[in-house]
Amino acid sequence: MTDLLYWLQGPVPETAPPKVEMPPWGETKVVGKPLPRVDAYERVSGSAVYPLDFALPDMLHAAILRCPRAHAVVKSVDTSAAEKMPGVRAVITGKTPGADIPWFRGRGKWFSKLFDERARYEGDEVAAVAAETRAQAYDALKAIKVEYEELAFVLDPREALESDAPLIHEGTNRYGDPADYARGDVAAGFAAADAVVEGTYSTACEIHSPMEVHGSVVKWDGNRLTVWDTTQGVFEVQEAVAQSLKLPLANVRVIGHYMGGGFGSKLEAGKYTVIAALLAKTTARPVKLFLSREEEFLASGNRPANTMTVKVGAKKDGTLTAIEFSSIGSGGAYPNGASTSFLATDLYTCPNVKARDENVAINAGRARAMRAPGFPQGAWALEQAMDALAIKLGMDPVALRLANVPKASQRRGNQPYTSTGLAECLRDGAKAFGWSEARKRPKGDGPVRKGVGVASALWGYGGGPPATVVVKLYADGSVNVNTGAADIGTGTKTVMAQVVAEELGVPVEKIQIEHADTGTTQYSGPSGGSKTVPSDMPAARAAAIEVRNKLLAGAAEDLKLPFEELRLEGPDVVSAKDPSKKVAVTAVKALERHQVLVGVGTRGPNVEGKVISMFATHFAEVEVNTRTGEVTVTRLLAAQDSARVMNRLTFECQVQGGLVMGLGLGRTEERVLDRQTGKMCNANWHDYKIPTALDVPAEQKVLSVDLVDTECNTAGAKGVGEPATIPTAAAIANAVHDAVGVRVHDSPITPPRLVALLSGRGKKG
Amino acid sequence: MTDLLYWLQGPVPETAPPKVEMPPWGETKVVGKPLPRVDAYERVSGSAVYPLDFALPDMLHAAILRCPRAHAVVKSVDTSAAEKMPGVRAVITGKTPGADIPWFRGRGKWFSKLFDERARYEGDEVAAVAAETRAQAYDALKAIKVEYEELAFVLDPREALESDAPLIHEGTNRYGDPADYARGDVAAGFAAADAVVEGTYSTACEIHSPMEVHGSVVKWDGNRLTVWDTTQGVFEVQEAVAQSLKLPLANVRVIGHYMGGGFGSKLEAGKYTVIAALLAKTTARPVKLFLSREEEFLASGNRPANTMTVKVGAKKDGTLTAIEFSSIGSGGAYPNGASTSFLATDLYTCPNVKARDENVAINAGRARAMRAPGFPQGAWALEQAMDALAIKLGMDPVALRLANVPKASQRRGNQPYTSTGLAECLRDGAKAFGWSEARKRPKGDGPVRKGVGVASALWGYGGGPPATVVVKLYADGSVNVNTGAADIGTGTKTVMAQVVAEELGVPVEKIQIEHADTGTTQYSGPSGGSKTVPSDMPAARAAAIEVRNKLLAGAAEDLKLPFEELRLEGPDVVSAKDPSKKVAVTAVKALERHQVLVGVGTRGPNVEGKVISMFATHFAEVEVNTRTGEVTVTRLLAAQDSARVMNRLTFECQVQGGLVMGLGLGRTEERVLDRQTGKMCNANWHDYKIPTALDVPAEQKVLSVDLVDTECNTAGAKGVGEPATIPTAAAIANAVHDAVGVRVHDSPITPPRLVALLSGRGKKG
Repeated sequence: MTDLLYWLQGPVPETAPPKVEMPPWGETKVVGKPLPRVDAYERVSGSAVYPLDFALPDMLHAAILRCPRAHAVVKSVDTSAAEKMPGVRAVITGKTPGADIPWFRGRGKWFSKLFDERARYEGDEVAAVAAETRAQAYDALKAIKVEYEELAFVLDPREALESDAPLIHEGTNRYGDPADYARGDVAAGFAAADAVVEGTYSTACEIHSPMEVHGSVVKWDGNRLTVWDTTQGVFEVQEAVAQSLKLPLANVRVIGHYMGGGFGSKLEAGKYTVIAALLAKTTARPVKLFLSREEEFLASGNRPANTMTVKVGAKKDGTLTAIEFSSIGSGGAYPNGASTSFLATDLYTCPNVKARDENVAINAGRARAMRAPGFPQGAWALEQAMDALAIKLGMDPVALRLANVPKASQRRGNQPYTSTGLAECLRDGAKAFGWSEARKRPKGDGPVRKGVGVASALWGYGGGPPATVVVKLYADGSVNVNTGAADIGTGTKTVMAQVVAEELGVPVEKIQIEHADTGTTQYSGPSGGSKTVPSDMPAARAAAIEVRNKLLAGAAEDLKLPFEELRLEGPDVVSAKDPSKKVAVTAVKALERHQVLVGVGTRGPNVEGKVISMFATHFAEVEVNTRTGEVTVTRLLAAQDSARVMNRLTFECQVQGGLVMGLGLGRTEERVLDRQTGKMCNANWHDYKIPTALDVPAEQKVLSVDLVDTECNTAGAKGVGEPATIPTAAAIANAVHDAVGVRVHDSPITPPRLVALLSGRGKKG
Repeated sequence: MTDLLYWLQGPVPETAPPKVEMPPWGETKVVGKPLPRVDAYERVSGSAVYPLDFALPDMLHAAILRCPRAHAVVKSVDTSAAEKMPGVRAVITGKTPGADIPWFRGRGKWFSKLFDERARYEGDEVAAVAAETRAQAYDALKAIKVEYEELAFVLDPREALESDAPLIHEGTNRYGDPADYARGDVAAGFAAADAVVEGTYSTACEIHSPMEVHGSVVKWDGNRLTVWDTTQGVFEVQEAVAQSLKLPLANVRVIGHYMGGGFGSKLEAGKYTVIAALLAKTTARPVKLFLSREEEFLASGNRPANTMTVKVGAKKDGTLTAIEFSSIGSGGAYPNGASTSFLATDLYTCPNVKARDENVAINAGRARAMRAPGFPQGAWALEQAMDALAIKLGMDPVALRLANVPKASQRRGNQPYTSTGLAECLRDGAKAFGWSEARKRPKGDGPVRKGVGVASALWGYGGGPPATVVVKLYADGSVNVNTGAADIGTGTKTVMAQVVAEELGVPVEKIQIEHADTGTTQYSGPSGGSKTVPSDMPAARAAAIEVRNKLLAGAAEDLKLPFEELRLEGPDVVSAKDPSKKVAVTAVKALERHQVLVGVGTRGPNVEGKVISMFATHFAEVEVNTRTGEVTVTRLLAAQDSARVMNRLTFECQVQGGLVMGLGLGRTEERVLDRQTGKMCNANWHDYKIPTALDVPAEQKVLSVDLVDTECNTAGAKGVGEPATIPTAAAIANAVHDAVGVRVHDSPITPPRLVALLSGRGKKG
């Protein structure tokens, strides 16, 4: 009973610790080091339970019937045969009471019903089944009889704007007015130029293709819903589901402890979660609903195709005088989309700029954010145009870019950047790549030609959303970190542990992370847009410092010394200036009294009047087989400016992944829609090619220019996820041009396309 | 992309809210109201997953082989046959590498190995099995061959102190020196008395008998262990398990979302959790290990038997002059135990007091805390002695007690109580019970006699351990409360929701509670000792007020008004003195910016220099069949001083439960040990009688004296769990004496015992 009696006496008062201050880090012991991931064991051993692995007792399996046509009215749905199939427990359609609801995807935003009467693309939801097994559910789908009234469809955004195009929504196929941007006088700028280039470029539509398909497991307790979801943002899913089901946010708990890739497609919630919730309510059973790989291709998002026209003018010395850029793209059958003009308006110093983005509806799967949405498309056009301009000016492409490095964001009122590492990326990258030597090297005179290319990028959105992190120091000196952020494979948990280890001197092995659970963790925005480190890391740091302050204040009380004289020495001891005075962390009475010391940290606001942006320059070396059109990327080098690198190992891994995705955009990935039927021809991993280990260059180098950024947040880290993939494809295209003198305007650079260009049948740049 | 872009701009700075102040509550809207439990639906529908219901994929089932003898050396254990049994995946004993470890039950405390070479009671752990099914595991236990060397045993604490008693531990059977207490001069006190009574009383050993047996489900991820445990204190379990397995606390996550009763037996961890963890490690599978009902009787704790001698003296006017009290009890085969002398030294004003508690080892299951540990035993003796004294003085027993109501804790340096409701309990209770009328009523002249009795109590440990609670306000105005406290069936979650609802004006339906999880919640002490409301409620209140302050500060910014002019109006609107100025809660920009507003509250220290105690007086009416010895309790009334009642409904339910437990102590419950074999004779619910619905009186009233306590914590609630059960049994015994003139010194008052007394064969008082 001693323990209980001890507690029943109640704690005694203590002095308050001082306010949390976050000075810039000097030399660090843990932050920046190439530590392996804290959850590496679970991930590689298979003991990590991803939502796709998750099972509950008595759980049913659900499947969705999707419209097989590009555009149709759902006239009638006959579920009677399906309901009699073995194991089937529920079948729902848009006519089922309670299922005739709008599907919300953001606060107050909706654009279709859960099962809409009109199917606007191949993959639109028509009905759903819950059965004892997954096979029974898919079998039952086949027994549902649907009468469709087929409608004319349109697949090309430019055709969708023609006056006789079939309308996908009311009134117009435009998603809003064209987004226009202008500064200076473009006509005057081109008039003043010594050289001008102009060209039209296009990128193919890419599918995210995460290892783990989209889906959820759901369970009701009365009017409370728990969702195990594979997601980048548990709070985003909570909001969408709560709105569609008309529940208070507090009644929807979303747990996302692991997730097998998202690349932006899991930034938002999916209809499948609400469908699973309705089936679970009807059957009073937990329900699991995950998409098939085919559904994943059709209905889980994409990076939309864009057609871009770019015109750039410069003086002889390379100084840019004018840029004009226009783009047309498609959010797909429902509104979404991102600007592709950002780079054209802000990557280089240029007084005269004009840009337009147009977003149009087509009868195809809806776009979702995909790693640096809009930017790789913009880079494909702008950075090939810059390459063409350098050739026209007779300048080295690196030198041309160096002549136009910005110090401020022209797009945002010329607010200065907290740091601009573009020049360093260009210079350090060129040196490490052996750029000058490679440029001078002969291209070869056999059928295989060698070439090198360069392209740059920035990611315009630094800083990030609000975040609150709680850090607990246990009585034995071990630590628990509580953050709402999802770890989308980038090492978020590891970086959080490092930050806390740095401030508390605890080895990362003694730090546990609880994360991504709307019920038990505090708020964090969705993990995307290179924001997780800039947003959540300072919050974790503030929480850890608050814990340290409480510990030191307790030790000061115990040792009867002023707070300022004490510091944490290693993980275990608080010691004073006078080395004879010290106390073990676990012996600090305040810790014993409270059993845990709790610190709560929130992210401070972005620095005012400044802009946080990350920069990158990628270098590519290719071998082009002029007979077969095959392009082999032999070397890639990424020079990145993320300012502080939090973990050298996870940083490199993340950039490597970015390079491979860039390789996919440049070389292999393309959604093919059949113009006759409106259906996707390659909704599988056999026909849709993502790069494999054999496609990755033998040499792929990652370089951080390690800029010190004292302006950006407190700890000077800017993020890395997006800029690591933006310029890769353009650098490869420029290298192909260097090798064979042919400019490939349309991604991906496939052998048939290149052979056509080499034989003079395609357009050249 | 709008959402992501919005976040990527980053939040803007805002004014800090003022410090949290917690003025006493005036009139309340939610607190105190008889609201049904927030988790009532889950509990009654069966959708609540108790640890006993919990299942993981690939989970094994484990069972423990327990020594069938009262005292023995385990000479050898042959597991070879068991290992070959169908479904068996692992068998471990004390010789298994890694299993030869000490079992810790508190920081730095251990007293036996997990599987000790010496079994000290019927039920001590010898070996354990993990198998595919529970039946296979129990079958395999029978195939384990154990060679025991039987040792002499002792079952009675008084015999255990004899010089030739078998020793259970090294050197002595005493658990420490006798605990002595004294003030004043007892001899002089008795000399000055006009009347003195003296008697010896004993209570039988009770078993907690929760609906849900003890046990855990465990799962490893690398070197991290997750435990789903049926427990009153997740942080207690975490500590014991971490120590035995030599893991950092952060590596042991204990989850206890529901639990089916504990009554103190689940305040601490059990060996079964560590045994399950070892089996899970060996088999690389999750393991479930729950005790059988028989094991529950043998090895999960008890309220030990006590033999107490009490002597009380008083003046003619009832003023007490001296109390002498001594008690001998047993922690069982391993150390534990509580003082039974507390009431004798502190319930009534008395200048001369002497008390002794002795705690002795015997060969029987170890004691654990059981609702108000030690107090019901002490009340059984003291309050019967007070009854005898009143009779001797010719005073009304209520009047005798009223003459000695304390205003300060004499045991604790005469520190004043924050409030003393004992007089109100006696007066209001007597009035509501119809005490005076019932005393005057004829006892009856047939074989069935009627009588009434009274007894009082205090619970000496008010206030409580540290607690930290986090409250989150979601963007739609719904709320999440995060507390480490277990809800042991008393309505803790409901009370927390009410406190938060009171401060934030949100209906309880929009409040969700996440609780009792060492990984995701903050610290709270174990739920026991009537401490949960006094300890966790102020923390929840502070957290809610911090959230409200943040909200009002945000609204002040939006409305451009001073903070002080704003208040929350209903659940939805912040309004100013000027009624035209208001803003919807969900429109406050600070809420939109942060998506959640987070408040963190910690429990303030107990008020200094004062003591928090709860008081109670119970009244009983009985009918005694003088032919059969059957006692029927026809009426019970509990008058309780808990100061503020947080929820009238859960308060009443908790007191009703206390009365029923008191009825069990007084009337039916008794562990019977066989003196020939040392084995328990009634380790089942057939032979060990807990009161059923048919034993509960037709009329059972609960009264709160509703004292205002402005000194105790901020919100003036003192707790209720323990005092609701302490005096019941004594009140029943006094009613029996009133009915038939026979004093039953030994609990429980069974028909054979009463018949013996009525026929003059037993001792009378």
